[in-house]
Amino acid sequence: MSKAWLDKLNWPADGLLPAIAQDAASGDILMVAWMNRAALAKTAELGEAVYWSRSRQKLWHKGEESGHTQKVLEIRTDCDEDVILLKVEQQGGIACHTGRHSCFFQKLENGEWRAVEPVLKDPKEIYK
Amino acid sequence: MSKAWLDKLNWPADGLLPAIAQDAASGDILMVAWMNRAALAKTAELGEAVYWSRSRQKLWHKGEESGHTQKVLEIRTDCDEDVILLKVEQQGGIACHTGRHSCFFQKLENGEWRAVEPVLKDPKEIYK
Repeated sequence: MSKAWLDKLNWPADGLLPAIAQDAASGDILMVAWMNRAALAKTAELGEAVYWSRSRQKLWHKGEESGHTQKVLEIRTDCDEDVILLKVEQQGGIACHTGRHSCFFQKLENGEWRAVEPVLKDPKEIYK
Repeated sequence: MSKAWLDKLNWPADGLLPAIAQDAASGDILMVAWMNRAALAKTAELGEAVYWSRSRQKLWHKGEESGHTQKVLEIRTDCDEDVILLKVEQQGGIACHTGRHSCFFQKLENGEWRAVEPVLKDPKEIYK
């Protein structure tokens, strides 16, 4: 299979583009992680989100430990071809390692970050 | 005014964090740009999106030329405190310099990127 579509993206010197996972049904932004070429190729092949873990320096099949995989319904890129958008079905409804639906649970209110989304599952129950 | 909330973010060595602008009403992801500390402080102060232009190396008050400003209704960050999410009202309904609603108009279909969103206004009419 040709990988011309991968070449079309503007990969930077460090080889990593930001990738947004958006809940396909609700439109909620679930998380942002990073992808290198191999991660994006694997995501397209599997139909599940695979990122590049900057902390662990390896491919990260999202949900491999937690079971909270992301089924990829659509892959998009922007006008500059340097950001990836995945429209996904989030297994278990939990994308965040804190046990919340979305990683974007901190909201700026009166000059302070406040956690405004509930923890749906104790992380100790997710990562056993 | 205290800027402790700015210090709480995990600014990387280059001082730039990705910032997502999401249409507050529809949930559509409009664009991703970059913010340094000054851009985010200005965004919070003005209530309109101000990014850091990497190409022009200066603060970029979105819409300063096009009129397509973004009224910021909410500022969020994620669990790692290294991505910014703005929920915005997009003036003119056009975020992209190509004249489209969203910058994420290219969709991967059968191994090719296809433009799947209409141009709402000729860019020549936007940037006179």
